[in-house]
Amino acid sequence: MPQQTMPDTDYQLVIIGGGPAGLTAGLYAARARLKTLLVEKGALGGQVLTTDWVDNYPGFVEGISGFDLVEKMAAHAERFDLATRTAQISALDLRGKSKILYLEGGERLTAQAVIICTGGSPGKLGVPGEQAYAGKGVSYCATCDGPFYRNQEIAVVGGGNTAIQEALHLTKFASKVTVIHRRRELRATKVVQEKAMASDRIEFLLDTRVAEITGGAGGVEGLRLAHNDGTSSTLAVSGVFILIGVVPNNQLLPLNDLKTDEYGFIVTDTEMKTSLPGVFAAGDIRSKSFRQIVNAAGEGATAELSAEQYLAQLD
Amino acid sequence: MPQQTMPDTDYQLVIIGGGPAGLTAGLYAARARLKTLLVEKGALGGQVLTTDWVDNYPGFVEGISGFDLVEKMAAHAERFDLATRTAQISALDLRGKSKILYLEGGERLTAQAVIICTGGSPGKLGVPGEQAYAGKGVSYCATCDGPFYRNQEIAVVGGGNTAIQEALHLTKFASKVTVIHRRRELRATKVVQEKAMASDRIEFLLDTRVAEITGGAGGVEGLRLAHNDGTSSTLAVSGVFILIGVVPNNQLLPLNDLKTDEYGFIVTDTEMKTSLPGVFAAGDIRSKSFRQIVNAAGEGATAELSAEQYLAQLD
Repeated sequence: MPQQTMPDTDYQLVIIGGGPAGLTAGLYAARARLKTLLVEKGALGGQVLTTDWVDNYPGFVEGISGFDLVEKMAAHAERFDLATRTAQISALDLRGKSKILYLEGGERLTAQAVIICTGGSPGKLGVPGEQAYAGKGVSYCATCDGPFYRNQEIAVVGGGNTAIQEALHLTKFASKVTVIHRRRELRATKVVQEKAMASDRIEFLLDTRVAEITGGAGGVEGLRLAHNDGTSSTLAVSGVFILIGVVPNNQLLPLNDLKTDEYGFIVTDTEMKTSLPGVFAAGDIRSKSFRQIVNAAGEGATAELSAEQYLAQLD
Repeated sequence: MPQQTMPDTDYQLVIIGGGPAGLTAGLYAARARLKTLLVEKGALGGQVLTTDWVDNYPGFVEGISGFDLVEKMAAHAERFDLATRTAQISALDLRGKSKILYLEGGERLTAQAVIICTGGSPGKLGVPGEQAYAGKGVSYCATCDGPFYRNQEIAVVGGGNTAIQEALHLTKFASKVTVIHRRRELRATKVVQEKAMASDRIEFLLDTRVAEITGGAGGVEGLRLAHNDGTSSTLAVSGVFILIGVVPNNQLLPLNDLKTDEYGFIVTDTEMKTSLPGVFAAGDIRSKSFRQIVNAAGEGATAELSAEQYLAQLD
């Protein structure tokens, strides 16, 4: 369908979500002159907006704030006239050849192809202090923030592979890492556990929950802990990494149609194709092991090029 | 094996190739404090070094020269003390638990894990005259050789993004650029096509192949062309830029062990794992449909994180 004859509610491509994956897909789509709309429910930027400092996005030699990085990504896509819109999607129908998006307020959009970049959210403890000290000692990403804790004492909350591997990773920086896990046994693979047990920088507090994160003007200063035997204690730390998993932002997806993994993340192939024709996914909403800004961006580019290829073979 | 007890020839991780994929893997490995070496046979930067202008690496809003972008990526990895070495590898043995690299001159390195980022090289036409006039009017790099053709008439062979972008770049020097493409339609992104169509220095010869590159003692003088309708013609040019895609730099790989596609690119899963344990691949050497700087970088990050996970479960 030639672009100029399409009504304003009909698009060749709709990108859902404006984090690094969505913005990169948008940059590529705008350069490809597809009739494209990027729909974001809040501010452009996704989880990166809440990342204080990004030290590992290649090319920004001295690092860059998360806010500045996504602002640049958004400006980059805007330079090529990407259309963006702030709107909440209430329902999606991705099954047919024409994909239908129902916006809150009743508006209806269609797209020949959709790229889902709705991202994920860190699993939260939901305890006092967690929100107040987010980015001031409370972190959800060891790779991002570990180097800030050189020779300091910190805590990791969680017992799975990610938590224990990241606890090990953090011993390269921190002088002491206390792993806090609510159960008697870790969930992490044995060999990973053994390595962590062998480290003289890691201590374990099992059968223990974080009841509160405490601090002052300078950020986190400690944790109030509740042990499963009914006792309680405190622990002085300058940082706490909450690594209890990522939850997919999949509330809008018709999960019964789209193949997802057991946690609800969308399964794709290496070219970002989902189980539905014309539907692609990129970034943290994908089923994958490693959630990084640069691989989200890379996947956004790949997803858009896959979508272009899909559109080219439509009648 | 604790890092400090390893001899200088033994590494936890060796990265082969210093383009965007290798430099990003190196950035991540250096930040993870793995004992890492990046081996590059020439200058750091890979094919991007020969790219005049990069307009689609997300975050560089106004674009950046290829040279400057890889210089920033290299400086970024160096900021975290990535060890790099200029050396030619003569042979690789990736089959065992310990990966062995034989350097020219006889030195032998080992690594517990290897990430292959050897990239690709420009594809060749394979027609008479191509080899004879290489460097005497036949070029594979517009950035490198464009300035030699000031006020001259030249040809570009190819219809993809690289070919059309470089044709535009070459209009800064040449008085006329004829784009020769074997198909009826260009493959390049629309915005790039539009720019080229708008240039009064670019002409298009579609449905046309180069049959021979002709010349004399001074170098290239013309092309013999075969059109898809069965006719033939000649075109007088003093230079021809062949920009028809990428062939894998796989000369060092024991291809009988590593799964590759029909063109010799390495097959990986979505986490950049190859068919051999402890061997990962990222960037243009991978079997994939879309070769972009940002997805090469993203794959470099993913490959390094996969390698970390592999190293963590070693005894």
